[in-house]
Amino acid sequence: MTVNLPLPQKDHLKPVKGFQMGIAEAGIKKANRKDLLVMTLAPGSQVAGVFTLNRFCAAPVQICREHLAQDGAQGEIRALVVNTGNANAGTGEQGMKDALATCAALAKELNLNPKQILPFSTGVILEPLPIAKLIDALPKAVANLGEDHWFDAAEAIMTTDTQAKATSVTVQTPAGVVTITGICKGAGMIHPNMATMLGFIATDAGFAPGLLTNLTREIADLSFNAITIDGDTSTNDSFIIMATGQSPVQIQSADDPSYGPVRVALIDLARKLAQMIVRDGEGATKFITIDVQGGKTEEECRLVAEAVAHSPLVKTAFFASDPNLGRILAAIGYAGITDLDVDQVQMWLGDVWVAKNGGRNPDYQEADGQRVMQAEEITVKIDLGRGLAQQTMWTCDLSHDYVSINADYRS
Amino acid sequence: MTVNLPLPQKDHLKPVKGFQMGIAEAGIKKANRKDLLVMTLAPGSQVAGVFTLNRFCAAPVQICREHLAQDGAQGEIRALVVNTGNANAGTGEQGMKDALATCAALAKELNLNPKQILPFSTGVILEPLPIAKLIDALPKAVANLGEDHWFDAAEAIMTTDTQAKATSVTVQTPAGVVTITGICKGAGMIHPNMATMLGFIATDAGFAPGLLTNLTREIADLSFNAITIDGDTSTNDSFIIMATGQSPVQIQSADDPSYGPVRVALIDLARKLAQMIVRDGEGATKFITIDVQGGKTEEECRLVAEAVAHSPLVKTAFFASDPNLGRILAAIGYAGITDLDVDQVQMWLGDVWVAKNGGRNPDYQEADGQRVMQAEEITVKIDLGRGLAQQTMWTCDLSHDYVSINADYRS
Repeated sequence: MTVNLPLPQKDHLKPVKGFQMGIAEAGIKKANRKDLLVMTLAPGSQVAGVFTLNRFCAAPVQICREHLAQDGAQGEIRALVVNTGNANAGTGEQGMKDALATCAALAKELNLNPKQILPFSTGVILEPLPIAKLIDALPKAVANLGEDHWFDAAEAIMTTDTQAKATSVTVQTPAGVVTITGICKGAGMIHPNMATMLGFIATDAGFAPGLLTNLTREIADLSFNAITIDGDTSTNDSFIIMATGQSPVQIQSADDPSYGPVRVALIDLARKLAQMIVRDGEGATKFITIDVQGGKTEEECRLVAEAVAHSPLVKTAFFASDPNLGRILAAIGYAGITDLDVDQVQMWLGDVWVAKNGGRNPDYQEADGQRVMQAEEITVKIDLGRGLAQQTMWTCDLSHDYVSINADYRS
Repeated sequence: MTVNLPLPQKDHLKPVKGFQMGIAEAGIKKANRKDLLVMTLAPGSQVAGVFTLNRFCAAPVQICREHLAQDGAQGEIRALVVNTGNANAGTGEQGMKDALATCAALAKELNLNPKQILPFSTGVILEPLPIAKLIDALPKAVANLGEDHWFDAAEAIMTTDTQAKATSVTVQTPAGVVTITGICKGAGMIHPNMATMLGFIATDAGFAPGLLTNLTREIADLSFNAITIDGDTSTNDSFIIMATGQSPVQIQSADDPSYGPVRVALIDLARKLAQMIVRDGEGATKFITIDVQGGKTEEECRLVAEAVAHSPLVKTAFFASDPNLGRILAAIGYAGITDLDVDQVQMWLGDVWVAKNGGRNPDYQEADGQRVMQAEEITVKIDLGRGLAQQTMWTCDLSHDYVSINADYRS
C-alpha cells in the first residue's frame, strides 16, 4: 500500500543529454528480473555523492568514497554500476575484492580506468556477492545503453519497493533550459537483512569542478536526510548527483545567475524522490510532515522533528487517526533540548491550534483534531518559541502491516 | 500478556519498620478503583529520588525536586502521596497550585509541614487534576495506614499495567538484618496520554544524610534507566528510595561494612522491579537482554545497547523468532561510535556465536540461531573489542499487540 504515490509515466521522464542507462538480468537473487543497471556519463561530467554513516558500510560504499575522493583526469567518474539482490555488506575482504572486480570488468567493457567507476549494491546483507553472474551480465547491460531508459532503470534498482520511483523536471535559467531527472529506491529496511536507500539524479547543467560537492551535501540534508520510516539507517545508503554539462548552462560559481534556479530545482526534485520513499514506506497509511520552527538552531529543530517522527507512540496514534497531543508533547520534551521552556511551545495539527503555551489550547475541540487526523496527509507544526531556525521532516505512520511485513516474511 | 511475570504473593512482601501505606478510592478517573496511595515515614528517615528529564515534566515532579532539594528539619520528608488516573502534566500554573494544595491537605491531616510531602501523579496528560475528589479521599487513605499494605499499594498505583508489581528481600549484614521492599508501575506509555513509570523502594536500614542521594542515582542507572519498551520517556517518571533507619543497621559512609551488601541488595531489587515493567511491556511476547561489552566507555556501550534495543526492525525480528543478524549489526553500526572498527565486533545469540570479526561466523548454522530465538527469554551478547567497559539493557519485542494496544484503544 502506498500513500498518494502514482506510478511515474515513462514519457514524463526526460532524457539527460550525456547520460545513458543500460539494464540487464544477472539472476543475482531471483531469475527473470532486471537486477543490473549500468550508467555512463559524457567526458567532463561532474559527480558528487553522500553516503551512509553506518560503520557497517558496504564494500561498494567504501570504494565509491575512494573513487570520488581522487582528483585529476584518471579520477574523472565516467560510469556507475548497480546490482540489486545482494548488498555486499558484512562481507569483509572478499566483499572489497568483488566490488573492485566489478569496477575492473565494467572498465574493460567501456575502455575506462577502474577508478572511473562507482559501484553500488543493494539487497541481502552478510551473503557473498555472486560476482560471476554479475560480471557475465555486464556486456548485456552495456549493449542496452540508451538515454531514454529512466523507467527501466528505476525498476532495475527496486528491491522490496512496491513500485518504481522516478521524476523529472526542466528549469529555465538565464543561460537556457536545464533538464533534471532522478530515480531512487527504498521503503525502509522492509525485508530482513535488506540494505536500503539509493538515489541517483542526473542533470545536463555544467558545474565547475568541486562546486557540486557541497551542494549535494546540502541537498541530501534537505531531502533524503530529512525522511524517516523506522529510524534504521542502512549499510548501503547512497545519494549521487551527476552533471553532464551537455546543456548551454555552465555554472562556474554559486554567484552564477543560473546557480539559484538549478539549486532550487535540484532540491525540489530530491525532496520529491525522498518523499516517494516515505509514501512507499513499510505499512504506511499516512504521509506526515513534521514542521519545527522557532528553534535557536536548525540542529535543535531537527532533534525535535526526529523525536516526534521516530516515536512509535506518535506513529501508532497517526495510524489510529488519534489526535494524541500528550504523546507529541512528550516527544518534544525528551528530544534533548535541555533548556527548553515548554511554556513557549505552540503546536498545530494541520490548521488546528492544539497546544498553546505548552498546554492544551483552551479553544481546542477534539473534533477538530479528529478531522485533521483522518486525512491521508497530515502536517504537524511545532513552534519552539526561542529562535528563528526551522527544520522539516517527513515520515509515515506505524501500522499493523509494518509488523507483518517485518515479522512475518523472510526472504 | 506478560513474559514470565508471576503475581507477587502478599505474604512474601515484607513490612519495612517505620514505613506505612494507606489506600483509598478517590474516583479520580474511574469509580470503585483504588487510585490514591499515601505513604508515611518515621522521623529521621532519609529519602532520595531520580526524576524524568522530560522538559514537559509534571507539576508534582517539579515539587518533588524542590522539596528534596531543601535541607534542615523542615525539609525532612515524612510522607508521599500518589494518585493515578491523572498525571497533572501539561497543566501549567493550575497544575502547580493543585499539586501544592495536595501537599497542604495531607500535611494538615498528618500534622506536618507541606514541604515534608512528596506528591506523585500518573495517568492522563493535559487534563486538569480533579483536586477536590483527591483531597476528599485523603482522610480515608490516612485512616487506612499500615505497614503490611504493600500489595494493595502496588495495585493502587497501577494504570494500564496488567498486574501489580512488587518484590521484597532481606539481607544479612555485619550489623544485622535489613529488609527491603519495593513496588513499581509502568508498561510503556500503553494508553494514549498515559504518563508512566513510578518506582518506590523502602528499607529499614539507616543512611547518613546525603549518602542515599548518589546511591539512588547509581541504582536508577543500573535498573530503571536500563530498560526500554518503546523509547518514549514520560512526563512523570519518578524513582524513590526511602530509608527509615528503624533497623539496627546504621550506615554512616560508603566504607561501612554494611554498605556493600545493602547496596547490592538494593540494585538487585531495583533491577527486578524494572524488569517487571519490561515483562509487562505493551504487547511483549519476549524478554530480551542486550549485553554489550568490550567498549572503551560505559557510555558507548549504552549507545550500542540502546540502538539495538530501540530498533523496530530488531524488535520485530525477535517477535518473529528470526535470527536476523543483519538488522542487529546495522543497529550497532549506526549507534554513534564513529571510530568503531567493525572487524573487531563479535556477537552471540544466547550461546551461539553468530557474528565473528564483523561478519557472519563461518561456523554459524541458521538452525542454531532459530533455536535461541524461539525462547521467551533471549540474551544478545555484543563484544565491541575495543576496551573493558560494559552495559546491560533489557527490552521486549515489538508485536502486533503493541500496535493494537496503542492504536486501537483510547481511554
